[in-house]
Amino acid sequence: MLVSDYILNFLIKKNVKKVFLITGGAITFVVDAFSRNKKISYIDCGHEQASAMMADSYSRMGPNFGATMVTSGPGATNLLTGIACSWFDSIPTIHFSGQVNTNELSGAVKSTRNVRQVGFQETDIVTMAKPITKFSYRIKSEKEIPYILEKAHYLAISGRPGPVLIDIPMNFQRLKLDIKNLKKFKKPKSKNLNLKLKNQIDKTFSLLKKSKRPVIIFGGGIEISKSKDKLNKFFEKFEIPYVTTWSGLDCCYHNQKNYIGTIGVYGSRAANFTVQNSDFVLNLGSRLDTRITGGKPETFAREANIISVDIDKNELNKQRGLKNKLKINFSVKDFLINFNEKPRFKSNEEWINICNNWKNKYPMVLPEWRKQKKYVNPYYFIEILSEELDSNSTIIADDGAHLTWAVQAFKVKKGQRFFSAFGNSPMGYALPAAIGASIANKNKKIICIDGDGSIQINLQELHTVSQNKLPIKIFILNNNGYGIIKQFQELYLSKRYEASGKGVSNPNFKKIAAAFDINYTEIKNHNKMRNQIKTLIKTNRPEIINIIINPNQKIIPKLQFGKPIEDLSPLLNRDDFNKNMLIKIIKKDKKLIEIN
Amino acid sequence: MLVSDYILNFLIKKNVKKVFLITGGAITFVVDAFSRNKKISYIDCGHEQASAMMADSYSRMGPNFGATMVTSGPGATNLLTGIACSWFDSIPTIHFSGQVNTNELSGAVKSTRNVRQVGFQETDIVTMAKPITKFSYRIKSEKEIPYILEKAHYLAISGRPGPVLIDIPMNFQRLKLDIKNLKKFKKPKSKNLNLKLKNQIDKTFSLLKKSKRPVIIFGGGIEISKSKDKLNKFFEKFEIPYVTTWSGLDCCYHNQKNYIGTIGVYGSRAANFTVQNSDFVLNLGSRLDTRITGGKPETFAREANIISVDIDKNELNKQRGLKNKLKINFSVKDFLINFNEKPRFKSNEEWINICNNWKNKYPMVLPEWRKQKKYVNPYYFIEILSEELDSNSTIIADDGAHLTWAVQAFKVKKGQRFFSAFGNSPMGYALPAAIGASIANKNKKIICIDGDGSIQINLQELHTVSQNKLPIKIFILNNNGYGIIKQFQELYLSKRYEASGKGVSNPNFKKIAAAFDINYTEIKNHNKMRNQIKTLIKTNRPEIINIIINPNQKIIPKLQFGKPIEDLSPLLNRDDFNKNMLIKIIKKDKKLIEIN
Repeated sequence: MLVSDYILNFLIKKNVKKVFLITGGAITFVVDAFSRNKKISYIDCGHEQASAMMADSYSRMGPNFGATMVTSGPGATNLLTGIACSWFDSIPTIHFSGQVNTNELSGAVKSTRNVRQVGFQETDIVTMAKPITKFSYRIKSEKEIPYILEKAHYLAISGRPGPVLIDIPMNFQRLKLDIKNLKKFKKPKSKNLNLKLKNQIDKTFSLLKKSKRPVIIFGGGIEISKSKDKLNKFFEKFEIPYVTTWSGLDCCYHNQKNYIGTIGVYGSRAANFTVQNSDFVLNLGSRLDTRITGGKPETFAREANIISVDIDKNELNKQRGLKNKLKINFSVKDFLINFNEKPRFKSNEEWINICNNWKNKYPMVLPEWRKQKKYVNPYYFIEILSEELDSNSTIIADDGAHLTWAVQAFKVKKGQRFFSAFGNSPMGYALPAAIGASIANKNKKIICIDGDGSIQINLQELHTVSQNKLPIKIFILNNNGYGIIKQFQELYLSKRYEASGKGVSNPNFKKIAAAFDINYTEIKNHNKMRNQIKTLIKTNRPEIINIIINPNQKIIPKLQFGKPIEDLSPLLNRDDFNKNMLIKIIKKDKKLIEIN
Repeated sequence: MLVSDYILNFLIKKNVKKVFLITGGAITFVVDAFSRNKKISYIDCGHEQASAMMADSYSRMGPNFGATMVTSGPGATNLLTGIACSWFDSIPTIHFSGQVNTNELSGAVKSTRNVRQVGFQETDIVTMAKPITKFSYRIKSEKEIPYILEKAHYLAISGRPGPVLIDIPMNFQRLKLDIKNLKKFKKPKSKNLNLKLKNQIDKTFSLLKKSKRPVIIFGGGIEISKSKDKLNKFFEKFEIPYVTTWSGLDCCYHNQKNYIGTIGVYGSRAANFTVQNSDFVLNLGSRLDTRITGGKPETFAREANIISVDIDKNELNKQRGLKNKLKINFSVKDFLINFNEKPRFKSNEEWINICNNWKNKYPMVLPEWRKQKKYVNPYYFIEILSEELDSNSTIIADDGAHLTWAVQAFKVKKGQRFFSAFGNSPMGYALPAAIGASIANKNKKIICIDGDGSIQINLQELHTVSQNKLPIKIFILNNNGYGIIKQFQELYLSKRYEASGKGVSNPNFKKIAAAFDINYTEIKNHNKMRNQIKTLIKTNRPEIINIIINPNQKIIPKLQFGKPIEDLSPLLNRDDFNKNMLIKIIKKDKKLIEIN
């Protein structure tokens, strides 16, 4: 069997049905194996960056596993931004880069060790990918390929998942492989730590029972550990106010009993008040980064016993001000399976009512926005879109202002997926990710929420949409500039909109759509918006819908530097604010806030 | 003075007039300084990858210096493929990436050292860029900024030039800088090695005088060391057959006395015969990589005394089969200045005639190709284009088959520039590079020679062309697939055109042009081609010209694996071939060739 055939057979075993690739000199032999294999095929992409993002999204959608193949040099370096998406969001993906023949590598003979390049398009992708992969490795002999592939796959999916990269010099790609007598990868035996987990769960439950104002945070770890199916039982048994991070957004649904909202610097006031007044936080799989805690983690849930469950002990040990009462270094899945065996628990009615009242009192879409005459209000647009989408929909948002509007206003329905490349947050993720999602599951309705700046980054993939007849609905939230930067400049740089509003411009999206034979619609105001959306999301072809937003549209609410997350801007009237703060802010914390 | 203002003032001093950028959260403060400075401005790009390529080309065009600014995370990783272009081709460029505040860096406190990410969009770009930069550094205090900037610039332009990257955490960007009492960068004193150089030049000249069949190779080092103006005197004094590498293509002009052609695996038969029959090779600034020497460097100029001049001693010491008789580790410029002082020398008339006869006997464009009826022959197209372009033109070609056709058939005129990102050779370089070149020098006619696959990589930059009204002429050599891969597959993989001819497709370029308001012309055959080209290259607006090539068009000639470079395919009749080989191939070499 040829090495190239072995690689494809391996990928088939690991649930890869489509590989996202661009061919090139150094990967041609591997790609050739597709001609001999009917069980796996490929999508020819317009840019390797997009390939990596498609693979990322393909893995997120499941049940399959995302893979790319690219040539050496620029083919490989083009992957990096996409690989970083998988790294920061803990998505298992595998990337194969071709490499020059081993005798053409710098360092193959001692005297070439410091030469910039020996073989054509030789680049040290292994070193470059190391900071953003769990495993980045150059094949040194064809004999180690079976071992390395299994090891790479194991590392990608185990513990805290993430991407892996395997660099294969051309000379190995075309060899025959006698798989007898080769070293096999053995998965490390997992230690039986059930007792420890059981003890920690007992402790958690006992703290919960003592608590008066508990809250549960659902983070990205729910999806990453594939434990959404464990939540039904959890919700049924434990009646406690629930909040989510952005990565955990689709763990709850908007109208769900006891679901309050998303937390963080762009969170909902209701959810932030809930966490900031709580005396018990069970954090299920959020790394509680500064977009959640605010710039001063010590002000986050400052009177609560915080219990964090995270597969990555480094996240538990960060010590950046936030103090975990209990660090549970297990997968969220293991935690949920065991915690679900605890007796039913309902937190006190009064607390639940207070939280739900906040949710009603501080809706994310304000009534006056719905009446806006000029331009489309992005919050109202997202509200309508979410009302019209059914539970079979997957929503993928890009970055910056439009991502924030989408997360803030979207009312998730049960069964829907909603994601973005939250940690890396590159411009240009949503379109290729929508392609990857659509290929992962043809039966899902895929919604891409993009920006006028962001969509340009992977514009070439509109051809992939068109060519593969993917019925993706691409909404461009068009505020004619980089809105989130403009808002920052308005606050801190006296409205000097350098390179965000000034000096930037957009192509004509109507003509762009026509260029790729994609149907185009422009929505400039609220008049017929609901009907237009209703119709367009039902078609069986791709659609580009250009939503014209006020260039000065703000993100509302938003935390200002130095404030604790209960105090989002625009600031509430102090009386109202104080009434909402059930706990007294401790002195030390007050000082901290005053200093900043 | 603010740090951000200091950075812009520094760039102005270093001849940066335009910065290629996309703004973003972590670079906003630096970008803000443009609002206070009239001496420098920026181009807002569609993708950071393109920014880096524009900066690269802007430096190549001179006299100015190329710079980019990008935000942290994806903004920075998007640069890498472009930075690699500068690295492998020794182009000095400077890149500023924003970074999260220092207190938000992983490792800012010990316990976060192994966390994937602390600050939003934090990425370790410094490590990732190290393999492809001369200096990659994160600012640790605002006080070191003046020192680091000077050091970085010095490293970029000195010795063998290359790109540098400076990563600036946000907290430093907004600080005031008291430049008094700060550490200043002092350029290392250069050793006076004139005597050594003089001795080596004496030795070179004495070997030259003894030689019977000498040849001069002009490589990229001529342009890199800015010594083209030294060549006039050289040509006038030393009448020897000249050949060039691809990077040295525009050191000579096609009709120049004693200029034979380009050498290498896609070289001209004439130039390859010249080198392979020579007994003396003076290599001025070529690293003689395997695309020049063939896969077996020991067969390259095997009977010649090879004298190599290279600023990078690592390139001289490679020891990959090729043996330098003399390694002159000086810049080509220093060499030329001193060598030009030697007495006139003319190599023997017979040798010169033989070489020139080869040039006539083996033209790169065969007469029958001009008569092709169906499709445009790319060689004939390039010939016509080169005939019609005046000396004020700069030609930038992309990669793969169309780059090869262009280099093979283009007849350079005196004063013209011709380049590509030869070492990295990414798809998608030519378009942003043409933009960078056009911005570097508005008075030059800029010709972009692109491919149907390649142009898609940075398609979004057509908007930059359109928006900035750059009168670039974009020729798409459209063979509807990846031609260079197809040729490989035809030879070695029984015409299984996986992901090169099969499974790939192009967007409609006419519609693409319309989308960006760029005039479009399609040329399908030779009928009116010359007139069309003549007209289109004279307009003062951008043009896209889609040149329809036979999908099975080959690169001719081309070296097959294992052959020495005198024996290009299609193979010559053995009688002709043997007549052209004046030297007897030594036994060892023959064996070597037979084995492979």
